[in-house]
Amino acid sequence: MKIAVLIGKDFEDSEYTRPAEAFRHAGHRLVHLGLKKGETVTGKKENTPVTIDMDVKDARIQDFDALLIPGGYSPDNLRAYDEPVRFVREFMESGKPVFAICHGPQLLISARAIQGCRVTAWKSLIQDVKNAGAEFIDSEVVVDGNLVTSRNPDDIPAFIDASLQKLKLAA
Amino acid sequence: MKIAVLIGKDFEDSEYTRPAEAFRHAGHRLVHLGLKKGETVTGKKENTPVTIDMDVKDARIQDFDALLIPGGYSPDNLRAYDEPVRFVREFMESGKPVFAICHGPQLLISARAIQGCRVTAWKSLIQDVKNAGAEFIDSEVVVDGNLVTSRNPDDIPAFIDASLQKLKLAA
Repeated sequence: MKIAVLIGKDFEDSEYTRPAEAFRHAGHRLVHLGLKKGETVTGKKENTPVTIDMDVKDARIQDFDALLIPGGYSPDNLRAYDEPVRFVREFMESGKPVFAICHGPQLLISARAIQGCRVTAWKSLIQDVKNAGAEFIDSEVVVDGNLVTSRNPDDIPAFIDASLQKLKLAA
Repeated sequence: MKIAVLIGKDFEDSEYTRPAEAFRHAGHRLVHLGLKKGETVTGKKENTPVTIDMDVKDARIQDFDALLIPGGYSPDNLRAYDEPVRFVREFMESGKPVFAICHGPQLLISARAIQGCRVTAWKSLIQDVKNAGAEFIDSEVVVDGNLVTSRNPDDIPAFIDASLQKLKLAA
């Protein structure tokens, strides 16, 4: 399956590298969407380089089977622009699987896409998640329909397991 | 007058240094509140060092005349903890002047302190500000009672002018 990874500068390295490795190991393909095709963005702790494969403004929902949103400062950097927010909104509307960890739900909030959903996120976002009309749940992974969310790097194993399960069901 | 500066790692350098310089030039004294007294936090672009004068958990509202919240990643780092959020909530309840720029309003949101207020902020926060029950205004500086907010480093001159005026009125 083809997974869109929406990523920008100062992402949390492990929240990209470990799901990416697990998804590839399971036979899935990743396409990195960002603000500028060809640009290399780096992680905030280990400077992991990621080259953007496609401008998010040129990405079409129908070309992807799932969406991964790593955390760190990347989601807040991306949501300052309209196109990543539009893409996330349309992806959520499509009903396809969306995997967001740590600060990832900031993009869901800006997309006004989680009203009435059960969600977890990095602890600094608790009030933002509640204000967005979602139910905040303090758990390593929260699955609501095809939306999978986790809190922080410690939750990555549970996040990967739940995400792979959604991909299997969507196949 | 004595101004509390609530600051943590990866603050936006100029949103601290330029208001700090202007406030000192006008004869005011700054006390840097953070997570750990004696710790040095640095700015995200120029590594400006700031030494924390006092744990925010030990700070009492009655000892300060105003509060400055610089932006960058500092507000999101601080609001992951209860004590900075409690301090901001109590400061807002006191009615004393509060100056918040860029990502600074993230702390106001976590403190549930801006419902019904007119506020501006960094553009990534627009939906968060609206969801918090505030009116988002796209202007270089927004003054609502004793709350002064601005959007980004370009707004610093207007932010400083409005803040100094509040300090003069509160003197």
